[in-house]
Amino acid sequence: MHKFGYCRLSTPSMALLMMLASTLQTVPAQAQTRASEFTLSNGMQVVVIPDHRAPVVTHMVWYKVGAADEPKGVSGIAHFLEHLMFKSTEKIAIGEFSKIISRLGGQGNAFTGQDATSYHQRIAKERLGTLMEMEADRMVNLRLTENEVLMERNVIMEERRARIENNPTALLDEQMSATLYRSHPYGIPVIGWGHEMKKLSREDAMRFYKHYYAPNNSILVVAGDVTTEEVKKLAEETYGKIPANPDVNHRERPTEPPYIAARRLEYKDPRAGNASFHRYYVLPSYVTAEPGEAEALDLLFKIVAGGATSRLYKKLVVDEKIAAMCGGDYAGWGLDSGAVSIYAVAADGVDLDDIEAKVDEVLDDVRANGVTAAELERAKKTFLANFIYDSDNQARLARRYGWGLTVGRSVNDIESWPDAISKVTLEDVQKAAARYLDIRRSVTGWLLPEAAQGQGDGGKKVKQPAIHTRS
Amino acid sequence: MHKFGYCRLSTPSMALLMMLASTLQTVPAQAQTRASEFTLSNGMQVVVIPDHRAPVVTHMVWYKVGAADEPKGVSGIAHFLEHLMFKSTEKIAIGEFSKIISRLGGQGNAFTGQDATSYHQRIAKERLGTLMEMEADRMVNLRLTENEVLMERNVIMEERRARIENNPTALLDEQMSATLYRSHPYGIPVIGWGHEMKKLSREDAMRFYKHYYAPNNSILVVAGDVTTEEVKKLAEETYGKIPANPDVNHRERPTEPPYIAARRLEYKDPRAGNASFHRYYVLPSYVTAEPGEAEALDLLFKIVAGGATSRLYKKLVVDEKIAAMCGGDYAGWGLDSGAVSIYAVAADGVDLDDIEAKVDEVLDDVRANGVTAAELERAKKTFLANFIYDSDNQARLARRYGWGLTVGRSVNDIESWPDAISKVTLEDVQKAAARYLDIRRSVTGWLLPEAAQGQGDGGKKVKQPAIHTRS
Repeated sequence: MHKFGYCRLSTPSMALLMMLASTLQTVPAQAQTRASEFTLSNGMQVVVIPDHRAPVVTHMVWYKVGAADEPKGVSGIAHFLEHLMFKSTEKIAIGEFSKIISRLGGQGNAFTGQDATSYHQRIAKERLGTLMEMEADRMVNLRLTENEVLMERNVIMEERRARIENNPTALLDEQMSATLYRSHPYGIPVIGWGHEMKKLSREDAMRFYKHYYAPNNSILVVAGDVTTEEVKKLAEETYGKIPANPDVNHRERPTEPPYIAARRLEYKDPRAGNASFHRYYVLPSYVTAEPGEAEALDLLFKIVAGGATSRLYKKLVVDEKIAAMCGGDYAGWGLDSGAVSIYAVAADGVDLDDIEAKVDEVLDDVRANGVTAAELERAKKTFLANFIYDSDNQARLARRYGWGLTVGRSVNDIESWPDAISKVTLEDVQKAAARYLDIRRSVTGWLLPEAAQGQGDGGKKVKQPAIHTRS
Repeated sequence: MHKFGYCRLSTPSMALLMMLASTLQTVPAQAQTRASEFTLSNGMQVVVIPDHRAPVVTHMVWYKVGAADEPKGVSGIAHFLEHLMFKSTEKIAIGEFSKIISRLGGQGNAFTGQDATSYHQRIAKERLGTLMEMEADRMVNLRLTENEVLMERNVIMEERRARIENNPTALLDEQMSATLYRSHPYGIPVIGWGHEMKKLSREDAMRFYKHYYAPNNSILVVAGDVTTEEVKKLAEETYGKIPANPDVNHRERPTEPPYIAARRLEYKDPRAGNASFHRYYVLPSYVTAEPGEAEALDLLFKIVAGGATSRLYKKLVVDEKIAAMCGGDYAGWGLDSGAVSIYAVAADGVDLDDIEAKVDEVLDDVRANGVTAAELERAKKTFLANFIYDSDNQARLARRYGWGLTVGRSVNDIESWPDAISKVTLEDVQKAAARYLDIRRSVTGWLLPEAAQGQGDGGKKVKQPAIHTRS
């Protein structure tokens, strides 16, 4: 984690869902907020979202580049560059960027995902101009010394150790993603493979920076107590002076071959705690789905796996008591595809075989029979309420637009999402389940609290010591 | 398959092993053959292998580029270009290359692998100069029209249909390779993913050609009734006139993250015939192994899985009669890694669970106890005999050098292989087994003759109908 910055490493909508989990503000809802948008002459898109409840603004620059755009063998460079963006320019001394924002009474963070990299600040409205000058400055004037790069590389290596290497679930997740995607770069972790990260160089970072960081590859989102005219003037004076980079690539990434074989893997780690079951499916995202399909998937997985009222939770945790915990979600914001993840932590002494069988029972049931009208109604209400609550949080409101536009959705798509959710029918949900809960699209992972072994069980399901507790 | 050319699509040493399978000549052995080598001023390496038994020569140009060097999302371009190399130049009309060779009394073929692309001909020694002129010509003067490219693309798509899409084992192999390698491009099929092949363009082919086809990225191998001086003169007059391409890249490919989780997958296809079990391991190749290790692995897998005297065959087919067929080999010629593949086709009514358990028994045994002195002796004898027999076949002899040099082995490495094999001890074999038969390095695949299904069994092992035959 960057000292002043903040970055989340996860699949697109995992991040989005994590974002949604913060505390809510108490000021009344503004679901009717409407953003205005325009484009600077150098191609930079700008979105302004009015929110006049307090004299503050949220300022975000979203670059249409993420880990999935990294060159072969240079994994982690998008995230590494995000860290390095907090170094110096001619105007800003080393490490001063965040300190200046702080002194201005603001706070900032940054984020790298598979499809986007963004830099965010929240600041008093009077300071917006200064901030925009600073952010525009580092869009093209970044300076990196060999020494700073090497020191920061230690930071990201440490970040990897803390977040991934020390976390058996994260290690399993990496292997599952690498197995789920056979061709698409979503299979490569955002933070990078460790053996590649340790070779990342100043040249790698500068090459990536010079290619992708440009006004015509970025989106400015300003939410807060400011008018479109004010933002336009400031944007023209700052970002508007940066020439477009005619060489920015269209993002063409390898796509996946057909899904013909279910995959599974098993990771043994003595640090794992209780055994756990994990399943990922690749399926369409909001960007790639047919109209209404992503909304149906979103609702479906809310009903199946979202929270303590979900079908999985009721079956595995409440009724059968075979799982200590379970859940899952639909990550629907990927530029090239979406993904579903489902997990269940085994209760003491329960076999993962039994867990997996029950999970499949639940999934088979929705494939065959769909969900109930009451479930669908409740899920819709939750979504719509969250949409309104989130609109109350300036940062989350701004992120919603930033992310959506970065992956090619329109302002109208973003604002009419509640309508699209409302329109989903029971049949839509059942059709989506039947079509996409196809085991051939999936990888199943078992995390086992055992010492790793070499040859032996062929990755097969090994019965755990069966200390069945009475229930 | 190319109309006049001939190309094999497989992992490096699979190809090599396939090559070894042809008929043997009857002329006495020439195990003591020694090649001479020199380099042209433009950087082209040349190897001359004397073989004066008949007035013919085998001529090969090996390019140090293969499918694993393809840009992201352009899978299949190396092989496609190999096909397109039989189109025209200013001097050779469309499709005439192979016809001219034929009229000269020669025959030719071509091959694309993950690490190499090569063009081979066998011809009367008097024609060698003409042939070298033609091959040098198409090294830099290839002409491609849009129309030819589109027509040839249909040919490779058809090749894919015939070899892969219509072959359940090949489809499973693709999925297993894609799962075995999480980062390295060996996980992408040499022929290409179908959805990417159908978009391959003239520009893709020309870009790849112009970048990689150059004298300083190629090796000329001439075996036959010719002296080093003769070849040198001809090479200087033909290939020697082509300027080096200073921009040819060093081949830097992504490497694999640590092996921490065994993977498995299951492919159901009603065309599959009897169910079959498959297991691949990634392990070092001759290029990457510590001294003696690859030789030990080669011998180990000969003993474990090579032919009807192998441990697997004796156990599964002869003694237990649970498999109709089984085998395996070590593919040790990869530039970046080697691989082992093992397979067993279930006898009627036998569960793959049982097959897998027996295979693991055999592997566990060699991990723990190694092999016997008699087995090792027999395996060495077979290898040494094959080395001599192969030396008798001019094409195979030439390929041995071509392949070896292309992946960076020296002439001395290639010629001293019999010595290196002789030196392998029982301890070396056991150590190699214990170290590399690590299930975490592997993917296990099940091919099941069933209709594909969507949700349901989670890729789990499904009991097949148990019609146990009496034995």
